[in-house]
Amino acid sequence: MWLSGRVPSDSSADLPATALELRSTLTDDGVVTMGIRETDVVAPTDDQVVVRVDAAPINPSDLGMRLGGGDAREARAAGDDTHAAVSVPITEAAVAAQRARLGKPMPVGNEGGGVVVAAGSSPVAQALLGKTVGFLSGNAYAQYRTLHTSQCLVMADGTDPADAAAAFVNPLTALGMVETMRMEGHTALVHTVGASNLGLMLNRICLDDGVGLVNIVRKPEHVEQLRALGAEHVVDSSADSFGADLTDALRSTGATIAFDAIGGGDLAGILLSKMEKVAGEQAGEFSRYGSDTHKQVYIYGGLDRGPTTLRRDFGMSWGLGGWLLTPFLMKIGQEAADRLRRRVADEISTTFASSYGTRLSLAEAVDPEQVKRYAMMATGDKALITPNA
Amino acid sequence: MWLSGRVPSDSSADLPATALELRSTLTDDGVVTMGIRETDVVAPTDDQVVVRVDAAPINPSDLGMRLGGGDAREARAAGDDTHAAVSVPITEAAVAAQRARLGKPMPVGNEGGGVVVAAGSSPVAQALLGKTVGFLSGNAYAQYRTLHTSQCLVMADGTDPADAAAAFVNPLTALGMVETMRMEGHTALVHTVGASNLGLMLNRICLDDGVGLVNIVRKPEHVEQLRALGAEHVVDSSADSFGADLTDALRSTGATIAFDAIGGGDLAGILLSKMEKVAGEQAGEFSRYGSDTHKQVYIYGGLDRGPTTLRRDFGMSWGLGGWLLTPFLMKIGQEAADRLRRRVADEISTTFASSYGTRLSLAEAVDPEQVKRYAMMATGDKALITPNA
Repeated sequence: MWLSGRVPSDSSADLPATALELRSTLTDDGVVTMGIRETDVVAPTDDQVVVRVDAAPINPSDLGMRLGGGDAREARAAGDDTHAAVSVPITEAAVAAQRARLGKPMPVGNEGGGVVVAAGSSPVAQALLGKTVGFLSGNAYAQYRTLHTSQCLVMADGTDPADAAAAFVNPLTALGMVETMRMEGHTALVHTVGASNLGLMLNRICLDDGVGLVNIVRKPEHVEQLRALGAEHVVDSSADSFGADLTDALRSTGATIAFDAIGGGDLAGILLSKMEKVAGEQAGEFSRYGSDTHKQVYIYGGLDRGPTTLRRDFGMSWGLGGWLLTPFLMKIGQEAADRLRRRVADEISTTFASSYGTRLSLAEAVDPEQVKRYAMMATGDKALITPNA
Repeated sequence: MWLSGRVPSDSSADLPATALELRSTLTDDGVVTMGIRETDVVAPTDDQVVVRVDAAPINPSDLGMRLGGGDAREARAAGDDTHAAVSVPITEAAVAAQRARLGKPMPVGNEGGGVVVAAGSSPVAQALLGKTVGFLSGNAYAQYRTLHTSQCLVMADGTDPADAAAAFVNPLTALGMVETMRMEGHTALVHTVGASNLGLMLNRICLDDGVGLVNIVRKPEHVEQLRALGAEHVVDSSADSFGADLTDALRSTGATIAFDAIGGGDLAGILLSKMEKVAGEQAGEFSRYGSDTHKQVYIYGGLDRGPTTLRRDFGMSWGLGGWLLTPFLMKIGQEAADRLRRRVADEISTTFASSYGTRLSLAEAVDPEQVKRYAMMATGDKALITPNA
């Protein structure tokens, strides 16, 4: 029944030859179509395993590939009698920017979790048989995935595969923020989506590690939520007092680096400006170039896709840039990355627990009404795909 | 006749006890006043020298302290019978941002050039007697300055003090850009004010060193000027074809770092966007995060004081930040900085030659009509103050 590779010694009996997966295709008529299709279940070679995918989250970082920047509010059904699909319209400019994917059915789903149901012959692969793992693959929205053992993070026995499903993107990003803060010489940090799943993880990490954290949230109820979870500095950007509250929190923590998932608008500039204000209070001499405190904002998401506007009222010692997990992990090297992964596995049900507002089968994941809902990426309403449910 | 310190052995006969200088004072009625005043000529201690200041340029970086961000178009005479002065109005916000200088007569003039007319007893100081030097002091708009020998850069005999006057800010900034390019792993660079004095220096450095340079200019005649000076890539931002021309030049040179003196508007974002376009052409696989080519823009001036607007259509591998000469020199260390200074002295009349549109006495430097002119910082119309002329 295996299509390639050698048959593993002790596991393959219950594996199907084919299974379902999601793919997203951009066509030059200005439409992105995401649909279910049948695909081969590939036999594992020596160092590979086959994972039955029980759960895969929809992260903001997944939506770009899924929907190609198209307008989810215009989602409509596009499947046939056999398989469901959904399509969304996309602007000409967005098509032009993504010519490299035109006509190609792109895999979707950065990460997932499940149980290893078949393994190659190597001892490392064999040791994973029956284990619950999280994995990073870029094609996680599928019923089965054949993966190299290095893509998997083994969880303690008894771990719920749904917990293991979000072991990479958010946990390593949250840990990466704290590592980046330390590597670049800062002692406290700001996060602009404090009540997100990632924000809650970061809050727990900072509480555990004694790192000062300024949580920015966008609704009053999220202030209460984070306070109840032990957060000391929570600032509501919808409040009239936002500027003063932010300045106070920056002064209390000494935060001079921020991680921003919003991207558009004036938030990055406001962060730099208020950091400079605090630095200026502490500086002695007047300098027309501003303080010599280096202030840094990293944009790691784009919830607001509008332009970023900087008033540049923050001196000359500042930086703004993109921050991405994969280059960060490459920069810190294998040993440091493994240390972070180990911590994620050890604390997957506590520090790095995620919560979901909805669970969707593959068919539901391409239901236009569901797409409209999860594309909003509302805080507290994260979706989990359960391909084998 | 010396007010303090020891009398040097062989030089002081012709020095006055007092001399004229410029100072700039911000008062809380929203006015910046720059005026001439009398000040003591301070005797040099062991390692100091007294320089008769023959020339000091008005760099864009001087204007902030001189005029405090006030509106030079509203300049009016403000002196008394003894000493001339000029005042400009300044906004409440600008007053608030500069409270640290309120009421203090701030020294002005980053750099100057002249002849050493007195020296302390140390061999290093004595060796400078009679030499033409350039110096960096922050208070160069004055007839005499007592300086530490380390602030001086000795020029070859016969150097015109006017040539020596601009030996620090522009030359070291231009060299610093090329050093930064190399240190951060880029192989070619963009400069957004190609026809400025600094731009012409950078063009000569890059021609000498074989470094690819994209010169952006803002007028068609500056394209011709730079071409005549050997520049290969000159792009006119006022042309309809600017975007395409810039992309071509980036493709030809492989430039992935830019130094921008304009600051405001969309130029920084356009640079990142076009760099990303070129990087995308060379990338193989489609990535929704854009290319993994790191693209960097440093803002080192603010000719456009309006907000910086970024459309963020340039992937996630990018950085934008402030760039300042002094922190850069501290970062590279004494030895590397000395190497750059040595090159400046050796090539002060060639690579690092400046040209001026006007020469002003101290009194003319506070004449409202002159202030209106030099505050425009028009390319090719740079002003040189000659305090002893």
